[in-house]
Order: sequence, then C-alpha cells, then structure tokens
Amino acid sequence: MKATVIVTLKPTVLDPQGMTIQRSVQQLGMANVADIRQGKYFDIDLKDGASKDEVERLAKEVLTNPVIEQYRIVWES
Amino acid sequence: MKATVIVTLKPTVLDPQGMTIQRSVQQLGMANVADIRQGKYFDIDLKDGASKDEVERLAKEVLTNPVIEQYRIVWES
Repeated sequence: MKATVIVTLKPTVLDPQGMTIQRSVQQLGMANVADIRQGKYFDIDLKDGASKDEVERLAKEVLTNPVIEQYRIVWES
Repeated sequence: MKATVIVTLKPTVLDPQGMTIQRSVQQLGMANVADIRQGKYFDIDLKDGASKDEVERLAKEVLTNPVIEQYRIVWES
C-alpha cells in the first residue's frame, strides 16, 4: 500500500518562504503569479498489513506541527 | 486559476531526508513504514489570463533542479 501525505501551512499562517519565491518569480518577469505557498510532500511505502490508522498517526504526530500546519492523506491502491 | 506543482527527487536519487524521517518513525514503533521520500509542494494562485505555459516554465526553470528532481503539475479549475 502506498500513501501520500501533504502538509501545508494553515491558511491563516504567514508563509515567508512562499513570499520569497513569489518575489523572485516576479523579478524573473512572470507577472501572472499572484501567490505561492509552499508545503511538504511525503511519499510513503507501507508494508503489507499496515493500517490506515497508522498512517493517520504518522501524519498527525510526526509529520505535522499542529500549531501551524494541516495535513491531508491521499491513498493509492 | 490555481495550479499545484509537486517536485520530487528522481527515483534514482538518494533521499537522506526521507531516510532520516523513516528511521525516526521506526524508533517510534511504526514498523510498517517501509519507505518515506520527501518532496516539495507548491500551491500557486494565478491571475486571470495566465497561461499554462507560464506555470510549466515556472515549474521547470524555477522550482525544479533538473539534475536531481522531477516535477508534475496538477491543475484546478
């Protein structure tokens, strides 16, 4: 089983990294980029018999800082 | 228009960051996690009139290091 965990900053949290990227991009002449926010992406391979709860726990307790971040899980096969 | 760019290491490239996460996770007792690879995730807001080519160029020339990384773009509305 495979799962993908996507961790992003909560919408209310300022993203200085994304703002820096956006400024660079605008200086490069791509004026149509209104906003960029960066997140983290984890591709996870699971052994047979792994439960969805386990991945949920991994995402919630290890990969995400619940104060400023939110996560979502995408399941594959 | 919105687009999401996901940048991951090429499959042949070693991912020390992912390996470190996996080791930590195993020490926490989640034995069913076989492999973790980390990537970057960019949520991009575009102004009206932005072209897909522009996002393609942004992903290819700015967000990705073509020597070790690959990207894919997911379009929303």
